[in-house]
Amino acid sequence: GYATLDLQREERTGFPEVIYGEGKTREQILGIFTKLMEHHQKVLATRVSNEKAVYIIAELRRLHPDDTFHYHEAARTLHWIASGYQERWKEGYIAVVCAGTSDLPVAEEAAITAELMGNKIERIYDIGVAGLHRLLNKVQLIEGANVVIVVAGMEGALASVVGGLVSKPVVAVPTSIGYGASMNGIAALLAMLSSCASGVSVVNIDNGFGAGYFAATMTNTI
Amino acid sequence: GYATLDLQREERTGFPEVIYGEGKTREQILGIFTKLMEHHQKVLATRVSNEKAVYIIAELRRLHPDDTFHYHEAARTLHWIASGYQERWKEGYIAVVCAGTSDLPVAEEAAITAELMGNKIERIYDIGVAGLHRLLNKVQLIEGANVVIVVAGMEGALASVVGGLVSKPVVAVPTSIGYGASMNGIAALLAMLSSCASGVSVVNIDNGFGAGYFAATMTNTI
Amino acid sequence: GYATLDLQREERTGFPEVIYGEGKTREQILGIFTKLMEHHQKVLATRVSNEKAVYIIAELRRLHPDDTFHYHEAARTLHWIASGYQERWKEGYIAVVCAGTSDLPVAEEAAITAELMGNKIERIYDIGVAGLHRLLNKVQLIEGANVVIVVAGMEGALASVVGGLVSKPVVAVPTSIGYGASMNGIAALLAMLSSCASGVSVVNIDNGFGAGYFAATMTNTI
Amino acid sequence: GYATLDLQREERTGFPEVIYGEGKTREQILGIFTKLMEHHQKVLATRVSNEKAVYIIAELRRLHPDDTFHYHEAARTLHWIASGYQERWKEGYIAVVCAGTSDLPVAEEAAITAELMGNKIERIYDIGVAGLHRLLNKVQLIEGANVVIVVAGMEGALASVVGGLVSKPVVAVPTSIGYGASMNGIAALLAMLSSCASGVSVVNIDNGFGAGYFAATMTNTI
Amino acid sequence: GYATLDLQREERTGFPEVIYGEGKTREQILGIFTKLMEHHQKVLATRVSNEKAVYIIAELRRLHPDDTFHYHEAARTLHWIASGYQERWKEGYIAVVCAGTSDLPVAEEAAITAELMGNKIERIYDIGVAGLHRLLNKVQLIEGANVVIVVAGMEGALASVVGGLVSKPVVAVPTSIGYGASMNGIAALLAMLSSCASGVSVVNIDNGFGAGYFAATMTNTI
Amino acid sequence: GYATLDLQREERTGFPEVIYGEGKTREQILGIFTKLMEHHQKVLATRVSNEKAVYIIAELRRLHPDDTFHYHEAARTLHWIASGYQERWKEGYIAVVCAGTSDLPVAEEAAITAELMGNKIERIYDIGVAGLHRLLNKVQLIEGANVVIVVAGMEGALASVVGGLVSKPVVAVPTSIGYGASMNGIAALLAMLSSCASGVSVVNIDNGFGAGYFAATMTNTI
Amino acid sequence: GYATLDLQREERTGFPEVIYGEGKTREQILGIFTKLMEHHQKVLATRVSNEKAVYIIAELRRLHPDDTFHYHEAARTLHWIASGYQERWKEGYIAVVCAGTSDLPVAEEAAITAELMGNKIERIYDIGVAGLHRLLNKVQLIEGANVVIVVAGMEGALASVVGGLVSKPVVAVPTSIGYGASMNGIAALLAMLSSCASGVSVVNIDNGFGAGYFAATMTNTI
Amino acid sequence: GYATLDLQREERTGFPEVIYGEGKTREQILGIFTKLMEHHQKVLATRVSNEKAVYIIAELRRLHPDDTFHYHEAARTLHWIASGYQERWKEGYIAVVCAGTSDLPVAEEAAITAELMGNKIERIYDIGVAGLHRLLNKVQLIEGANVVIVVAGMEGALASVVGGLVSKPVVAVPTSIGYGASMNGIAALLAMLSSCASGVSVVNIDNGFGAGYFAATMTNTI
Ligand SMILES: Nc1ncnc2c1ncn2[C@@H]1O[C@H](COP(=O)(O)O)[C@@H](O)[C@H]1O
Ligand SMILES: Nc1ncnc2c1ncn2[C@@H]1O[C@H](COP(=O)(O)O)[C@@H](O)[C@H]1O
Ligand SMILES: Nc1ncnc2c1ncn2[C@@H]1O[C@H](COP(=O)(O)O)[C@@H](O)[C@H]1O
Ligand SMILES: Nc1ncnc2c1ncn2[C@@H]1O[C@H](COP(=O)(O)O)[C@@H](O)[C@H]1O
Ligand SMILES: [Mg+2]
Ligand SMILES: [Mg+2]
Ligand SMILES: [Mg+2]
Ligand SMILES: [Mg+2]
Ligand SMILES: [Mg+2]
Ligand SMILES: [Mg+2]
Ligand SMILES: [Mg+2]
Ligand SMILES: [Mg+2]
Repeated sequence: GYATLDLQREERTGFPEVIYGEGKTREQILGIFTKLMEHHQKVLATRVSNEKAVYIIAELRRLHPDDTFHYHEAARTLHWIASGYQERWKEGYIAVVCAGTSDLPVAEEAAITAELMGNKIERIYDIGVAGLHRLLNKVQLIEGANVVIVVAGMEGALASVVGGLVSKPVVAVPTSIGYGASMNGIAALLAMLSSCASGVSVVNIDNGFGAGYFAATMTNTI
Repeated sequence: GYATLDLQREERTGFPEVIYGEGKTREQILGIFTKLMEHHQKVLATRVSNEKAVYIIAELRRLHPDDTFHYHEAARTLHWIASGYQERWKEGYIAVVCAGTSDLPVAEEAAITAELMGNKIERIYDIGVAGLHRLLNKVQLIEGANVVIVVAGMEGALASVVGGLVSKPVVAVPTSIGYGASMNGIAALLAMLSSCASGVSVVNIDNGFGAGYFAATMTNTI
Repeated sequence: GYATLDLQREERTGFPEVIYGEGKTREQILGIFTKLMEHHQKVLATRVSNEKAVYIIAELRRLHPDDTFHYHEAARTLHWIASGYQERWKEGYIAVVCAGTSDLPVAEEAAITAELMGNKIERIYDIGVAGLHRLLNKVQLIEGANVVIVVAGMEGALASVVGGLVSKPVVAVPTSIGYGASMNGIAALLAMLSSCASGVSVVNIDNGFGAGYFAATMTNTI
Repeated sequence: GYATLDLQREERTGFPEVIYGEGKTREQILGIFTKLMEHHQKVLATRVSNEKAVYIIAELRRLHPDDTFHYHEAARTLHWIASGYQERWKEGYIAVVCAGTSDLPVAEEAAITAELMGNKIERIYDIGVAGLHRLLNKVQLIEGANVVIVVAGMEGALASVVGGLVSKPVVAVPTSIGYGASMNGIAALLAMLSSCASGVSVVNIDNGFGAGYFAATMTNTI
Repeated sequence: GYATLDLQREERTGFPEVIYGEGKTREQILGIFTKLMEHHQKVLATRVSNEKAVYIIAELRRLHPDDTFHYHEAARTLHWIASGYQERWKEGYIAVVCAGTSDLPVAEEAAITAELMGNKIERIYDIGVAGLHRLLNKVQLIEGANVVIVVAGMEGALASVVGGLVSKPVVAVPTSIGYGASMNGIAALLAMLSSCASGVSVVNIDNGFGAGYFAATMTNTI
Repeated sequence: GYATLDLQREERTGFPEVIYGEGKTREQILGIFTKLMEHHQKVLATRVSNEKAVYIIAELRRLHPDDTFHYHEAARTLHWIASGYQERWKEGYIAVVCAGTSDLPVAEEAAITAELMGNKIERIYDIGVAGLHRLLNKVQLIEGANVVIVVAGMEGALASVVGGLVSKPVVAVPTSIGYGASMNGIAALLAMLSSCASGVSVVNIDNGFGAGYFAATMTNTI
Repeated sequence: GYATLDLQREERTGFPEVIYGEGKTREQILGIFTKLMEHHQKVLATRVSNEKAVYIIAELRRLHPDDTFHYHEAARTLHWIASGYQERWKEGYIAVVCAGTSDLPVAEEAAITAELMGNKIERIYDIGVAGLHRLLNKVQLIEGANVVIVVAGMEGALASVVGGLVSKPVVAVPTSIGYGASMNGIAALLAMLSSCASGVSVVNIDNGFGAGYFAATMTNTI
Repeated sequence: GYATLDLQREERTGFPEVIYGEGKTREQILGIFTKLMEHHQKVLATRVSNEKAVYIIAELRRLHPDDTFHYHEAARTLHWIASGYQERWKEGYIAVVCAGTSDLPVAEEAAITAELMGNKIERIYDIGVAGLHRLLNKVQLIEGANVVIVVAGMEGALASVVGGLVSKPVVAVPTSIGYGASMNGIAALLAMLSSCASGVSVVNIDNGFGAGYFAATMTNTI
C-alpha cells in the first residue's frame, strides 16, 4: 500500500505520527488520517491546502459525524482531538513571538502544534526590530516563558535580539517573507544560524510545526 | 577602545559573555579575558587557535599565578573557573553523541561548554548510521538524557535517526567533515534542517559551543 | 525535422531510445512514439503530463486500435509493449524502497522502468527513518534483492541507513519532497552524495527513471 | 604600460583614484602611488598586505624623504597627504559603529577613508545586539551624526536595529567574521539587504573603504 | 491581534511605518492602512497587487469618501496624503535613472516614495550602457541632483558607469529583469556590490521603495 | 517617456536596437516597434509571448496594412523586414546544431536572428551525445560552416564534443531543458564554461538570440 | 574512547570498515588501523596525507615487522592485506576510464579500492572528449567490462559519451580538476547527474573510493 | 601510461594539444611537453606555477640545449616554437582590453595564446569604466580589430560597455579580481552572461587562454 504507518511513534517519542500533507493526494491524507484516528486520541496533519481540506473535512464529517475537526486556513493545519480527551496541560507557557503580520501563518502553525501537545501559548505578534520598543515592552512576558519561539522573515534579526535579552532557550523559525536577496527565507535562515546571541537554535524555513514540536519536547522534560 | 564588554550578560541570560576568538588579536583576547575575570567566576573563550593559546595562557599564568586555565587543543576552547567556585550541578545529564571520530573536536566543544554551565555529560562517540547497531546499543542511554546533542558531518543522517528513536529534544550540529558535495558542512546542515524526524533543531556548522550553550539553557528551565 | 531518432540505441545499449516528454509538444511526442513503435517492441515516454497524455493516448488508440498503451498518472510514464512480446524475466528482483508516501510517484517511475526492462520488482514503501522499525522489519527482503533503489526526499537519510545494512548496491534517488532548506531536493541530493555508507551511488533529483534504468543495466550483467 | 591612470577622477568625482592593492605587485603599487603623488595632494591605497607595505613604504621614504606615509596594519590602508595640505573639515561627524571587536579592521578602513575625505569620525565599537543596552546607550550620539556606517559580521542584525532607531541614512557593511552558515559574510550581506528597517543601503562584504567613501559623498552634498 | 503598529516611527525616523503588502490579506492591509490614517498625514503601502488594491481602495473610499487614494499599477504602491497637507519640498532634486523600459516599475516605486517624502524627482529612463550616448547626454542633469538612484537589471553595469561619472552619492537598485544567469536579479546585485566605481551603495533587488526612502533620508540631512 | 531609443545603434554596431519583450507591456512593445520601423529596414523583438504577439501583430497590421510581420511561436520572435529590402547574404553558412528536440525553440531563436542578419543557416537538430553516430554523420557539414552554434540542455556535453571535432569557433548556448541538478540550465552553463575543448565560448542560458547575433558579428568580419 | 569500531561491517556488507583519514590525527588512524588488523584480513584507509602516512607506516612496520603496507602517494590510500591471504578474483574486469592526466589520483583511488575487493582492473586513462578518437579506439574494451567507472573533471562530458556507447552500468566520478565555473567539481557533478545518457549513476566529487566500492558491490552480485 | 596524447588535434582543429598544468606533477608536464615537441612545431602549457616552471625549463634546456623556451611569470604560460619556424601572421589584429592593472595576468595569457596562433595583438590595459574617458579614447583602435577580448573582474561592466560601442565580436573574460560579493569572479561571469549589449560571448573565469584561442579560431575563418 501507499503507507506504512508508524503506530509506535507515540509510545517512542511522545506524540503520534504527524501527516505531512504536501505531495499526498487528498485521498491518501484522508486514508492515513482515518487510520491514525483508530489508534490515537489526537491526529494532526500539516501543510494541507485549502482545496484539499474542503474535501477531507467533508469526508471526515461523513465518516465521523460525532467528531469535531479543526482546520486553520492560514496555518493550513488540520487536527482532531478525541471527544472526551482530557488534556494534561504543562506548567507555564511557551511564548510565540513574530516579527511582522506577514509571519502570522507560520507563527500560528507553531502555536497550534505546541498547544495540541499540551502547552499554553502566549502569542506576541508583530514586534519586529524596526520598532524596537514594541519588543522591549514585552521582555518580561517573554522571559516568563519556558521556551521562546521566534518567527521572522526578511533578515530575521529578531531572533538574535530576543536571544540577547532573555535567559530562556530560543527556537528560531525563519520565514519565506521577503523578496530578492531574502531568497525565500535563506537570508533569515543563515542569519539565525549565525546569530551572535548564544542560546538560539533553528528549524527549517516556514517550519512552524517543527518549532512548536521541538519546544513541546522541551517542556516534556520539565 | 576595541571592546565594550557586556558585563550584564550573566545577570540577563545566565552566563557571562563568551569570547569569540577568531578575528581578534591575541592581545585583544588576553585583554578581554582578564577584564571578564574581574567580574565573573567563569570565563570561556572559543575558537582560540593553538598558536594564540600559547601566548595567552603564558600571559594569564604570569598575571594570575594562582589560577588554573584549561585549554583543549582539539576543541580550541580556553576557560577559567575561579578557584573555590562551587558548581551547582544540574539533575541528570546531557548526551553528546557524534557520528565519527573526525567529529570529535566539535563534540568536545559542545561537551566542555555544557559542562562549564553546570551539566553532567554523557559522551557517546563514533556511532554513525553506517553501523547502526552501535547506535541501537545506546538508545536507552540517550533516552535517559535531558537533552541530546547530535554532532555529525557528511550527510548528517544521525540526527534524523536519533530524532526518530527518542522523546527528548535533539539539538543537531552539522560538521564540516566531508568533501565535495558535503560542501564544508552545508550538506549536513540542509539535511538536518530538512529532517523527517520532528523534535530536531539545528545550530551552525561546527558550532559545538552553540549547541552546548543552547542545551544548557534548556536544563536551566528544568 | 525536429527529431533524429537514435534507432541503433537498442543494439548498442540494450534498450530503445526513451522519450523525454518535457519541452516537447504533444504532437512531437506522438510523432516520435509512433516512429519508435515501427522499429522496436517496447516504447517508453517519461514526464508526460496528464494533459498531454490524454491527447497522445487518444491518437495512439486511433492509429493502433489493437494495441494497449499504459499511462501511470502519478509516475507520468506512458509505455507500450508490442502485443505478443514475450518478456525474458531476469533472475531475482530489484527492491524499490521509499521513505514516505509523498515519494511514491518517483518510486513508481523507477519500478515501472525496471519492470519494463525485464526485472521483477519488490515495492517497499513509506519506511523512512523517522520510524526505523519499519525498515528493520524489511532488511531481509531488501538484502535479498539484486540491487536496491532507495527513494527519499527531505534529508534523504534512508539511503545511508540502508547502505549501512545490506551488501547490495544501493542506487539512491533524492526527491523534491520537502520545503525551505530542502531546496527542491538539493538537500537530499547532497546528503546522498556525502553518504557515510559506502556502496551508494546517486541519480538526479526525482529521476526514478534513471534509477530504474541503471539498476536494470546491472542485472543485465548478472 | 600596466596602468592608465585616471588623473581626471578628482575633478569629476571629488577624490583622486584610489589604488586597489590586491592582485598588483608591490612594484606596480609603488609606481602608481608615486605617479598619483605628482598630480594630487592625497593618495590612498587599500588592501595593501603587511608584506607589500614594508617594501613600498621603504621605497616611498627613500624617494620622498620629507613626506609622511601612514600605514594602518589592521585596516591595510596606506595613505599620504601632501605636507602643508590644509583640510577643510565638513560640519558635523560621521558615526562608525561596529558590532564586535573582530569587525574592527573593516570599521577602521571606513573611518580612515572618510577622515581622509574631510570628515570627523565618531568611533563606536563593539556594541552588537547580543548586549543591546550598549547600543541603546549610544543612540543619541548616533542620531547626532550626518550619516551612520554600521559594520557587522555574523548575522548583521545591528544594521536593522540601528536603522529602526535613527532618522539618519545608514550605510551597512557586512563583514566576513563568522563561520559555517555565515559563509564568509554572505549571511550578513543578505540580511542587511533584506533589512526590515527602511533607511539602510549596503556595500560589499568587508568594504570599509566603499562605505567610508559613499558616506563622504553624502556629506559633500550637505 | 495581527498587528502591533509602530506609531512612534515618524517621530523617531521621520516617516510613518510603511505597510509591506506581500503576505498580508487584503483585510489586514485595509485595517492597518485605516489605523495609520488616524495617526499620520501620509500613509504608504507597497507591493499591493492589483487584485488586492481593487478591494482596498473601494473600501477606503467607502470609509473616507472625502479623501483621495493613489494607486500606481506598475509600481504597485498605494498611498494617501491628508487633504490639506502642505508639503515642504526639499531644495534641489533626486535623479531616478533607469537602464531599460522593463525597469520602469521599480524606478517608479523609487520615484513615488521619494516624492512622498518631499523630494522633487527628475526621471531619466531607458539610458542603459548598450547605447552609451544616451547617458552621456544626461550627465549634467544627473550631476545636478542631490542623490542619484540608478535602477538596472541584467548585468547592472549602469550603476558603475554613472558612479564613475559624477560626484554625487549613487544608490543602486538591481532589478529582476533578465533570465538565466541573471538569476532573478542576483547578477545585477553582485555586480553592483562589486562596482569598481567608489561612491555606490546598493539596496535589495527590485527594492525601489528602499532606494527612494534611503535617498530621502539623505536629503533630510541637507 | 518610457523609452529612449538608441537610433544610432545600427550605425555603431551594424544592427538596429532589438526589443527585449519581457517586462514590457504589449503597448510599450508596439510603440517601440513602430518607432524603430521609421528609422530602420529591419526590426526584431525577442521573448514576445504568444499572448502579447496576438495583440501586437493585429495592431501592426492595422497600422501597416502593406507590410508582412513574422512571428515564430516556439522561438517567440517577432520581426519585420521592409518590403523591397534586398538582403546581401554573407558567403558560406552558420551551422545551428542542437542536442534534442526539446532544445528546438532556442535553436530557432538563434537561427532566425542570424538569418535576419544576412547569414544562411544549416539546421542540424537532435544529434546529442547519447547517440553519438548522429553527430559523427554530420561532422563534415559542421566543419564547413563559418561558425557553429551548439544548443544543448541537461549536461550540455555536445558543445565540448563538437569543439573537439572541428576547427571552427563554437558558440555554445545552454538551455533550461532538464530538471533537478540541471538547475534550469546552470548545469549546462557551468559545463560549457568548463569545456575541455578549447575553441568554445558561451552565451546566457536559453539565449538563442545572443548566439545568433554574436555569430553574425563574426561573419561580418569575414 | 574516540572510536566505536563497526567490527560486524564485513559480515553485514561484505567488506570491513574503511578508515576515513581526514579530520583524524595520525595517532587515531594508527590506533584504528591496528585494531582493524586484529579482526580482518584487509584494512584500507583513504585520504591519508603524505605527511601522516610517513608516521603511520613507520609505526605499523615497527609493530608488525612481518607485514607489508601499501601507500599510494597520488591516491593517498594506505592498505594492508594479511600475509597468506588468498584472493578469490571475480570473473571479468572493471574498466576505470579517466578523461585527463590530472584525474589520475582519483582514478587510482577507484582502481585500488576495487582491486582490493577482488576485481581485476583495466585502466584506460586520458581519453577525454576533446580528442574523441582516443575513446572510440577503446569502446570494445570498455564494453567488455562488468562495470565502467568514468572519472572526469571540468565539464565531465566523458560520462555521458561513454554512457551512450555501451550497455554496461556507468559509475561516474566528478573530479575537482578545473577552475572558475568548474567550481571545484560542482560543474562536473551537476553535468553527470543531468546526463542525457541513461545508465549513469554518480558518486561524490573526487570519491574514487566510493566508485570503486560501489562497482565492487555490483560484481559481488554477479 | 598517464597520458594518451591527442596527436591528431592540430590536423583536426588547427592547433596542437595544449597542456593544462594544474593537477599534473612537474614530471608529467615535462614528459608530455617533450613528447609534443616531437610531433609539432609549437607547444604551449598553461597554468604552470613558478615552482614547477623552474624545474621543467631546466630539464627542457638540458634535453634541448639549442631551443628557446618562454615562460611568462604573471600569465604562467610556458611555450616553445621550433627554431626556424616561420609564422604566417593573420591580417589585422586582435585587441586585448583589460579593466584594471590587477587583470593583467589574465590579459597576458590571452595575448600570448592568440599571438602564438599567428595573430598580432593590440594591448589596451587598465581602461575600466570607473574612468570612462580612458575607454572612449580607444574606441577607434578597438573597432579596428578583428575581434576584441575584454578582460575584467569585479562587476565586469567593461564588456557590456565595449559591446555597446563597437561592431566587432567581443569575447569577455571575467577575472577573479575582487572580494566578497565578487565571489572569485562569479559576479563578473554572471554579469557578462547577462550583458545588455548583444555581440558578447563569454569564457570561463580567468580563462585568458580560452579567450585567446577562441579569438584565434575566428581569425582563421577570415
Ligand atoms: N574516501 C572516503 N569517502 C567517503 N566515505 C569514506 C571514505 N573512506 C571511508 N569512508 C566511510 O566513511 C565512514 C567514516 O566514519 P568515521 O571513520 O567513523 O568518521 C566509514 O563508514 C567509511 O566506510
Ligand atoms: N510540516 C512538517 N514539516 C516537517 N516535517 C513534517 C511536517 N509535518 C509532518 N512532518 C513529518 O514528516 C514525516 C512525513 O513522512 P511521510 O508522511 O511518510 O511522507 C513524518 O515523520 C512527520 O512527522
Ligand atoms: N564559537 C562561537 N560561535 C558563535 N558565537 C560565539 C562563539 N563564541 C562566542 N560567541 C558569541 O559571539 C559574540 C562575539 O562578539 P564579539 O566577541 O564582540 O565579536 C559574543 O556575544 C559571544 O556570545
Ligand atoms: N578596497 C576597495 N574596494 C573596492 N574598490 C576599490 C577599493 N580600493 C580601490 N577601489 C577601486 O577599484 C578600482 C581599481 O581599479 P584598478 O586599480 O585599475 O584595478 C579603482 O577605481 C578604485 O576606485
Ligand atoms: Mg508590522
Ligand atoms: Mg568511525
Ligand atoms: Mg509516512
Ligand atoms: Mg564584543
Ligand atoms: Mg531600452
Ligand atoms: Mg532526441
Ligand atoms: Mg590529456
Ligand atoms: Mg587602474
